[in-house]
Parts: sequence; structure tokens; C-alpha cells
Amino acid sequence: MKLPVAVVGATGYAGCEAVRLLAGHPEVELAYLASHSQAGRPLGAVHRHLGAIGERVLQPVDAAAIAASAQVAVLALPARAALELVPPLLERGCRVIDLGPDFRLRDPEVYGRFYGGAHPCPPLLSRAVYGLAEVHAERIAAADLVAVPGCYPTASLLALWPALQSGLCDPDDLIVDAKSGLSGAGRGPSLTTHFAEADESVLPYNLAGAHRHTAELDQELALAAGRPVTVSFNPHLVPQTRGLLATCYARLRRAAGTEDVLALYRDFYAGRPFVRLQADPPATKHVTGSNVCAIGLCVDARAGRLIACGAIDNLVKGAAGQGVQDLNLMQGWDERLGLSTVGLYP
Amino acid sequence: MKLPVAVVGATGYAGCEAVRLLAGHPEVELAYLASHSQAGRPLGAVHRHLGAIGERVLQPVDAAAIAASAQVAVLALPARAALELVPPLLERGCRVIDLGPDFRLRDPEVYGRFYGGAHPCPPLLSRAVYGLAEVHAERIAAADLVAVPGCYPTASLLALWPALQSGLCDPDDLIVDAKSGLSGAGRGPSLTTHFAEADESVLPYNLAGAHRHTAELDQELALAAGRPVTVSFNPHLVPQTRGLLATCYARLRRAAGTEDVLALYRDFYAGRPFVRLQADPPATKHVTGSNVCAIGLCVDARAGRLIACGAIDNLVKGAAGQGVQDLNLMQGWDERLGLSTVGLYP
Amino acid sequence: MKLPVAVVGATGYAGCEAVRLLAGHPEVELAYLASHSQAGRPLGAVHRHLGAIGERVLQPVDAAAIAASAQVAVLALPARAALELVPPLLERGCRVIDLGPDFRLRDPEVYGRFYGGAHPCPPLLSRAVYGLAEVHAERIAAADLVAVPGCYPTASLLALWPALQSGLCDPDDLIVDAKSGLSGAGRGPSLTTHFAEADESVLPYNLAGAHRHTAELDQELALAAGRPVTVSFNPHLVPQTRGLLATCYARLRRAAGTEDVLALYRDFYAGRPFVRLQADPPATKHVTGSNVCAIGLCVDARAGRLIACGAIDNLVKGAAGQGVQDLNLMQGWDERLGLSTVGLYP
Amino acid sequence: MKLPVAVVGATGYAGCEAVRLLAGHPEVELAYLASHSQAGRPLGAVHRHLGAIGERVLQPVDAAAIAASAQVAVLALPARAALELVPPLLERGCRVIDLGPDFRLRDPEVYGRFYGGAHPCPPLLSRAVYGLAEVHAERIAAADLVAVPGCYPTASLLALWPALQSGLCDPDDLIVDAKSGLSGAGRGPSLTTHFAEADESVLPYNLAGAHRHTAELDQELALAAGRPVTVSFNPHLVPQTRGLLATCYARLRRAAGTEDVLALYRDFYAGRPFVRLQADPPATKHVTGSNVCAIGLCVDARAGRLIACGAIDNLVKGAAGQGVQDLNLMQGWDERLGLSTVGLYP
Repeated sequence: MKLPVAVVGATGYAGCEAVRLLAGHPEVELAYLASHSQAGRPLGAVHRHLGAIGERVLQPVDAAAIAASAQVAVLALPARAALELVPPLLERGCRVIDLGPDFRLRDPEVYGRFYGGAHPCPPLLSRAVYGLAEVHAERIAAADLVAVPGCYPTASLLALWPALQSGLCDPDDLIVDAKSGLSGAGRGPSLTTHFAEADESVLPYNLAGAHRHTAELDQELALAAGRPVTVSFNPHLVPQTRGLLATCYARLRRAAGTEDVLALYRDFYAGRPFVRLQADPPATKHVTGSNVCAIGLCVDARAGRLIACGAIDNLVKGAAGQGVQDLNLMQGWDERLGLSTVGLYP
Repeated sequence: MKLPVAVVGATGYAGCEAVRLLAGHPEVELAYLASHSQAGRPLGAVHRHLGAIGERVLQPVDAAAIAASAQVAVLALPARAALELVPPLLERGCRVIDLGPDFRLRDPEVYGRFYGGAHPCPPLLSRAVYGLAEVHAERIAAADLVAVPGCYPTASLLALWPALQSGLCDPDDLIVDAKSGLSGAGRGPSLTTHFAEADESVLPYNLAGAHRHTAELDQELALAAGRPVTVSFNPHLVPQTRGLLATCYARLRRAAGTEDVLALYRDFYAGRPFVRLQADPPATKHVTGSNVCAIGLCVDARAGRLIACGAIDNLVKGAAGQGVQDLNLMQGWDERLGLSTVGLYP
Repeated sequence: MKLPVAVVGATGYAGCEAVRLLAGHPEVELAYLASHSQAGRPLGAVHRHLGAIGERVLQPVDAAAIAASAQVAVLALPARAALELVPPLLERGCRVIDLGPDFRLRDPEVYGRFYGGAHPCPPLLSRAVYGLAEVHAERIAAADLVAVPGCYPTASLLALWPALQSGLCDPDDLIVDAKSGLSGAGRGPSLTTHFAEADESVLPYNLAGAHRHTAELDQELALAAGRPVTVSFNPHLVPQTRGLLATCYARLRRAAGTEDVLALYRDFYAGRPFVRLQADPPATKHVTGSNVCAIGLCVDARAGRLIACGAIDNLVKGAAGQGVQDLNLMQGWDERLGLSTVGLYP
Repeated sequence: MKLPVAVVGATGYAGCEAVRLLAGHPEVELAYLASHSQAGRPLGAVHRHLGAIGERVLQPVDAAAIAASAQVAVLALPARAALELVPPLLERGCRVIDLGPDFRLRDPEVYGRFYGGAHPCPPLLSRAVYGLAEVHAERIAAADLVAVPGCYPTASLLALWPALQSGLCDPDDLIVDAKSGLSGAGRGPSLTTHFAEADESVLPYNLAGAHRHTAELDQELALAAGRPVTVSFNPHLVPQTRGLLATCYARLRRAAGTEDVLALYRDFYAGRPFVRLQADPPATKHVTGSNVCAIGLCVDARAGRLIACGAIDNLVKGAAGQGVQDLNLMQGWDERLGLSTVGLYP
């Protein structure tokens, strides 16, 4: 029998990507598709690209109904919208994979500062597992509440983790210069995401730690390094729909060549199907539509720095795909079920 | 046991898409990957987006070796390059699905005029079946040589066929205004496909029947109409990678509303999983990555014309995907094996 | 002394383009910049690309103040917003160049049907001159109210006029298949113009005469042909910011070659600096940022049709640039003042 | 009388942009347009966007003929192609503005290392003035050989200069993460610049000092800092035609807020018409088509770093526009002649 799964917030880009991936998952049954704003309409009236799945009618966001239909709920909601939904789901025995930010930060004070007010259920922050699949696989497998990392943190953390954990790089000298396609901004129209404004332009925004993902980065980089970290995180919008590149700069503590670093990373990521390591820099195009994080490693010997570039599809490995990967880990299934390692190219 | 299949010309865009699709096909084994220019190199050295399949080493284009390894060969070669390869493959019992243009035209004289010289094996033109899956399914099922339609003809023919076959529209008054993304031009760099030239521009080209696909269109539209047809075919390049839209204008012979036409088309395409009919116009984005042809139907009552818009992903339904669909028909499998009806969106 | 000119609606794309062009016009002084929504703010707070002009503070949309400051007002307002403003401006002796649609149609009934209700001042519809500069130059020179054509009509009319006026083509068999960049949709965000939706997609919309510009086309094509015309007008959005191509299909009444048609057009447009005639099809990229309409002419002898492609920058020749051209005609200046015939390329 | 100027290499993107700008320059006459590969053809046969200028016939690259016709030659040639041309031009009294890299580096050894072999005329390296107009204006005014900076160095140097010269930032801890549109790669087609490869992708390349512009950056940053500098320079391609952003990271030597840094920069760039300073980050779209360098300044107090973002149009301020600005300085004209501070937007 297939596992009944709910997707809540099925009409946003991440939710709709979760529907696409779960619809092709061999062990999953899409048991409940919920939407706050579109309940009662068929999903296909909102999203034309979904074949037969589009005939499914969207249902209300109701914890009891969700838990009655599904053993796992994938939430794809705006910030703060999962706060009230998660407790009743867990109480009813429905495990939760949250693609949003509400359970990613362990420190409720930090959450409050970045997300507009106190967190209503701090104990759940301790209970939640940060769903960075290549790093926290064992804890994810045992979790009933998984907080899937944000898109920027996913690419940045995978690119930096081995260098920090091994002590190769100095945790006090870290810069992440990230570039993201516009789908990362979600489906709500705004002047920033208006085609004529975003097309043919690179736009830096929320520099110097102003972006909410900074908090996740600091928290997890500290875990990797074994001590507090303050990263300089600086995102940019680039004129494409999908694709995210995090170019990470880290000062080397000891002399090392690109091959040494590659060997270190190969060792760390041995057996992980969704990390692709390479000495040349990765293009985001090479991972579009796949759950792969391509990591290019390069030592800048002149400057004494490691340059680690992490490239992902922000809606797959940076959101719904990693959520499905976490589901596979929670169920003890092959990590690759329902996920592709092959991109749609060109 | 899985069916051993070869892909010849695996490094071009269509060939590489065939590899991607066949690698995910549950009944197929990729038995032989061949390339003229890159034999001896791993496929992954050319295409970085292919996970483990990239480790496969490209082999020479050798008919005997191909036929010894594979029961079916999918050819993705430039014009005229399949002419010498197909006869020895067929002789050795290896069936052929040709994504190129060498066996699409029944009239060798027309082939000679459009493709630079006499066709060396006219009898094979009669033997080949034009692989428009929704129209010629039965003949495809019995074929050993299938010529997969070009990208422009696929979208145009599916959009026009029922209107012509039923006599609804006048075959003497047909215009196809088509718009295609740049991947349709293949992987060879040129000034036309240079990013800075193609970006932010619409470019009409090969107007008024100068494009080679005109010959296919005339041939097949004549089949649909039951008499000779001369179409006005006019392609345009638009600044996107994938996606093709054929806006087809056909004069109505009798009064009909959009709903009447939809009913006619629904009847014609009943049970065909890859045709999606709609009263509103289709965006190419809604079929990216899928094998669907979305057809929007609209009667221009003022002008007495049917406007039928066919939208496809030119590399899937317009090339490799339709090739796999033809393979499924040839094998008597479910038409949908290895193919998606869900696009990658946004 | 320079001519004092006002721009009303300076923050939209067309208005802001009018500001850019008039700021570089040697005989014009920008006397008054008005905005409904942003009055009181400096223009540069809304648009960052305007150097020193950005320091100018936006003023209210007040007819008396405008007429007190300026001899000519360029209006760049949404549909129906100019209806109340134009009468008091004209009464106060301020001539008007309206980039919007409120005075383009001579028939108030047609206006009412397409623009949501009766026109409040039908006499002004008779008084207004349709500002298609290459066709109505003499009447524009004498006008005090010029209605600048829409972007789609500009490209379509210039491409078709000589063929209809000369009787070369049949006015009963006209199709315009138009492709426009997204800036044509204005500066207001919507799902259709959301980057992730519009990028990598061609989208037909308002087909079969549903688009408002159909009314203008019918009206002016009838003038060219000397009898009523019903065009099949079908616009598409393409993923670029600027650039509009109208591919026009017209049945030939007599045999003619491409060279014959070119000669006819060269004769008609002799001496007009902003029409560029060519036998090969024009790319929209070649006119970006210029006031040129490039017209490619090609006879489809097989189908007995003329294919006339008109390419413009929708914000220049399709809006603000043609407005400035009309201003030059009204003032008896060289038509080219303040306007470029050289595009920004690539 | 107007100054007769030659453009050599008029068919590449930078040369053709020089033609566009000089054709609109009030004090310049385009006296000689030269091309290696296209001599004998009209310029308009190569570039369709140039109105009447396109009728000019391209002439051979002949030093004597150039010097006989022009007092100043603007060279837009590939690396090493200006080496033989410059000496005879200077000997004949023709001053040179070189948009290429052959005279930018003072150290012939460094030139040899980055540009494929020994420099044939080291004395000219001393004679040449690096044409960064906002920094070396006085020396440029007196020069007969000006080496216009590369596109990446222009944006980076303008963004960093005041911070280094004032001692605000540590010259030993500099990272430039740069993003450029594809026109920076020139007009020669390649797989990297093939639309289907570059579209919808961010691609890091030549990281860690491998890019040739690194040498220029080190040289000039050392001048600013007053001691040797080794920068970590890392360029990326982004899917747009024009536009370049250099995000520069520099460690602060003393506490400073964003307003302090803005004040320092305002002081340094006082009176310079083409530098626009702002506290919010600049989008490249805001400078498209203009000669402006928009510099956004932001202190990352958490990380103790200044983040200075320089945005330019790579073909204007990053090439031909800065060349014209240098010409204006050499002639003692207003720096702004023939150049726009207003971008083409959107």
C-alpha cells in the first residue's frame, strides 16, 4: 500500500513542485491537496501544466481533515503560516515536512527577530530536525517534524560544510555571494518580479545579513565549524526562472590545492547520490529539474582562499525535491525514489 | 528482459534528450550510445547534466556494432547523415526510429529539392512510416522504419488535422505562423544563435515556404485533407530555449463556434494521452519538459477563420519524446511509458 | 526660446520614455511632469535610470496648472483617464499629444464597446488626428489634438498601408499575427507579467479580434483600402522587454514579386526617415531604442500572399517616440529632432 | 571644424558601439571605419541597426590611411591585434584610444604571462595612460595613447578606489565577485555563448585570478592603495546581453557606517557626471545604454566589511562610452559630450 501524503499550499511554486514530484513517486499516494485561497477549485484551474493531477479538487487547510487522510503532510506555506497548523497535525500523528521557514531556527529569539515576532511553540523548534539531507540524514530518519532548508542555505551549506567541519577553512572569514532565479521569490506578483523590471538585469538585494536566510546559515555553519559563525551573506537576483548559485569564499587555514579539497569533499559526500563534485565551476543549467547539488571547488592560491560554488535548482533541491528526499529518509526508502539526478537540458 | 536500444548522435540536443528519456524508461536498456565526433569520450565529458549515465563511453557510428547490440536504433543526426546508416541497420534486423528528416518525405524529388540532392534509396521512403503518433498509430505499430516528424510539423499538424480531415476548413487557405525557441536550431554555434544576437529579439526567417519543414507540412496536410495542399509556412525565432507554438489560420467552410470545434477535436483525439485541448490559448511554458501538445482552439467569427494554436516542447514532443512514443507503439506498450504528461513549471 | 512641454503620467513606461526623449530634445523644455499617484515625490525616487532629470519633483494632474506651464501636453495615461483632462487643456490653448487610446477611434460607439462605456465627448473624436506620422503627416501638422497610434497598429499599419492603398492586396483577407515584449503590458504587476510566468514562454492572448487594438486596425485599414475592413488580429507575448513584430499576411490580387512590392513601398515611403525597407525579415533587436519601423517584404508565391513584417520598439515608435515625431510635425520642425534612427545593439 | 576620428574594428560589439556613440557626438566626424575581415562591404551589411551610417563602406586596417584621415583612432581589436598598429599611428601623429587590452599593463612581463607572449614595445606601455576617467583625468588629458580599462576593472575599480585610497579598507583582503552579460564575450560564436547554453544559467568561469582582467585589477588597486595588492577576482556569466555588476568585498580597517562611506565617496567623486552613488544596491538595468557607473555602498557591520557594488553597461562605460569620455578629456571638451547619463529603461 502506498503512503498517503498531503500537500498543503499546493498552488505556490514550491507546493506545486511537490505535487509534481510526489505524483511521480512510486511509493506515494497524493491523498490531500490543500490551499487557503483556492479551496474548491480544481488544481488544474490554477496550474495548466499538470496533466490528470489537475483534475484533483483543492481542499481546505484543515488539520483534522489532513491528518485523517494522510500520514505525512508536506507544507509549502508563507512564513508564519505553518505555526498554527503543525501542532494539531503532530498531535494527530501526522508527520510534517515543512518547506517553509517556521521550524528551521533553533533559537526562538532569532526567529522572532527575522520573522516578525515571537515563536508561539519554542519546544517544537527543538523537536524539529533541519532537513539538510546530506548532513543530518540519521536525525531526519527519526524525525516527525522536518524543516527543509531554504534554497540559499542548501547550496551554501553543502558547498562549505566539509571545509568547515574538517578545519580546512577559517569560520571567521566567510562570504557567500549568491545568485538566484526569480522563481525563488514565489508566485505573488510585485514590481521586483515584474518581467520588464527583472529581465536583463542583475539586482543585489538584502545585502549584509539583511536576508532571512542569514539566520539559518549562521546556525548551521556553527554546527559545521563547532563554534559560532557570522557569515557575510549577499543574495542577487538574476534574470532566469530556476537556478541558484552560491559562490562561497572561505580563507584557508593551511596550504591546500584544488585536488586536496576535492579529495576531502569526495570523502565527506561518499555515497550521496545528489552531490556532484567537480574541479570546474558548475552552471545552474546543468541541474535544472534535478535534485542534484553540483559543487565546484577551486583554490585561489594567490588569495589563500577556497572558492566553493554550489549550484542547485532552487525549487527542487532548494525546496520540494529535498523535501521528498527527506521523506525517503524518514520512510527508510532509497533516497532517490521519485527524484531525478538528470537535469532538463538545455 | 529489457529492450536493448541504441542512440546514435547522442551529443546533439535531440540525441541527448533521447538518452535522458530512455534512461528513465522502465522497459528499455540503453545498449549503445554512438557519436561521430566524440567516440571514445564519456558522454558526461560533453554533457554535464547527465548523472551516472554520463559515465557511459561513446562508441563509433558503426552499423554492424549497433545492430549487434540493439534491437532498435534511435538516430539523431543532421540531414543526409542517416541515409547510409539506415539500410545496413534494417538489413541486420535493427529497427530504426529516425529523429532526422531523411525518411519523412515520400516523394524523392521533393527530398532532393529541399535537402541538397537526390535521395539514394527511394524504396525506403515508401517503407518508412511518418511517426505522427496521434494520427498514424497503427502504421507505426507495424513499422520497422519510423521517421519522427519535425518540430514545426508536429505542432502544426496536430493543430490542423481534425479541421482538415472533417472538411471543416478550406485546405486552400492555410497559414502557419510558428514561433520556436533556440534549441530547435541545434547545438552548433552560429551568429544567429549567439546569445547577444538572439536575446531580446523576435526574428522571422525562411518565410514563404523556404523552410524545409514546408515539404512535410504539405505532404501530411494533403493526407488530412484528401487532396493537395500548399501551406504558407512562416517560422520565427523567439528568445527562449525550449518551446514551440504554431498559430494556425484556416478558413472555415461552414459556420462553427469554438465549442463546436472543441467537440470535433475532442472526438478525434479521444483517448490520446498527449493531446490537451482547451478553449483558451496555450503558453509554451505549460508543456516544457513534457510530451504534451496543448491545442488551443478559437473561432474568429469576424474573419471566418479557425485559429488553432499548437504548443509543444520542441525537444520532447517535437523530437525525442515523440520518438519514444513511437517506440512504445512499435512495441505494443502503453504509449505513456517513460514519458511525462506533466511539464516542468515554472 | 524652447517649447515648454508637459508629460502627464510620467511614471509609467510610456510616460517615462517620453521624459527620456524630450529631455534630449534640442527644442523642448520639460516644463511640467505630472503623476496621479506619485505627485510630490521626485521622479528619480520612482525611476532610477534618469540622471539629473530624476531630481524633478512630480506635480499633480491639474489641467489649469499644466496649461499655465506648457504649450503642449503629452499624456501617457491608462484608458479613459484622458477623457476628462483633454477638454480643459484644449480650452486653455494647450495642445495635446495623447499616447493613450481615448481619442484614436472616430466612432464613439466602437469606443464604447471596446473601452467600457460611452465616450463623453464625441466631437473631440472628430477633431483628433490619428498620429500615424508616415501617413497623416499633413493633418498632424495642423492638429491641436493628436491621438498617437497603439503599438500593434503602428507596426501593422505601416507594414500594410501601401499594399492596401495601391490595391495590390485584398482587404477582405488580412491576418496580423503580432508578437510583443512584456513592456507593452505596462508597469503594473500581474500574474501574466510575473517574470517566472512570462519567461521562456510564448503566450497568445486576446485572439480573434478580442484585443482593443483591433478597432484601430479596422478603422485605419479601411482608410487605406477605401472600404470597410475586418482584420484577423492575433497578438502574442514573447519573453523580452522591448520589441514588437507584426507579421502581416495579405492575399495578392495580382501577380507580383518581392522586388515589385519593395519598389511600391520605396515609392510610398520615399523621404520618410523612420521607415527602413528590406527584402529580408527584420529582427526586433535591430530597432531597440530607435524610432525606426523596419519593414521586411516577402511574396509567398506558392500561397499567393504578401508577407509584410513590421518591427518596432514598442515604447519608442510604438508610443513615446512617435509622440515626439508628431510633436515635431506639429511644430514644423525636422521630423528627426530628438529621435534616433540608430538602435541600441546588441 | 569637427575632429576627424577613425574606428578600427568597427564590426565587433565594442567597435560598433563606438560608431554609434561617435555618430551622435556633436564635435566628431567619423572619418574612417576600418575592419580586417569586412573591408569593402558597407557597415550596414554587417550591422542592421545603424541607419544612414550603415551606408559607409568599411576600409582596410592600414595605418597610413588611418593617420591620413583621422587625428584620433579608436581601436576595438582582439588582444595582440593593436600591437603592430599603434606604433605607426603614433609616429604619424595620430593619437590612439585603445579599447583593447594591449596597452593597459605597465609591466611587460605581466602582459606576456596573461596575453600569450612578450610585449613587442615595452616603452609604449610606459607612455600609455590607463583611461579610468574618474581617476586619471589629468593624465588622460595629456596623453596620446590611452588604454581604456576592461569592463570588469572599470566597475570594480570605481567601486573600490576611494575605500582603498583613503585607507578605509584593507588592501590585503579584497574579493570581487562579478556578473556580466554575454555581450562582454564579443561577437564570435562559441558553445559558451550559444543561446541554448547560456540562457537560464549562471556560469562562474576563470575563477581565482585566471581571468586576464585580474592583472589590470592588481595593477590599479595597488595604485589606489599605495602598495601591492592581490585581489581575488571571480567572474560569472549571467543570462542577459548588456550589464555588468561587480560586487566588491573589502575588510574595514576601522568602524564606519554606510553613511560615512557614502560621504567619503561623495567627496571623492564630487563633480564627476558619470558616477551615481546610492545606499541601496544598483540594478544593472538602471544603467543600460548610459555611460553611468552606479555604485551602491553598504557596510556589513556583522562581518566588518564594506560591500561596494559597481553597475555599468559593459559596452558603454565598460568600453566604447569610456573611450569617448577619454576622448572628451583629451580634447578638453565637456566630459559629457556625446554620452548619455540616462539609461534605456526598461
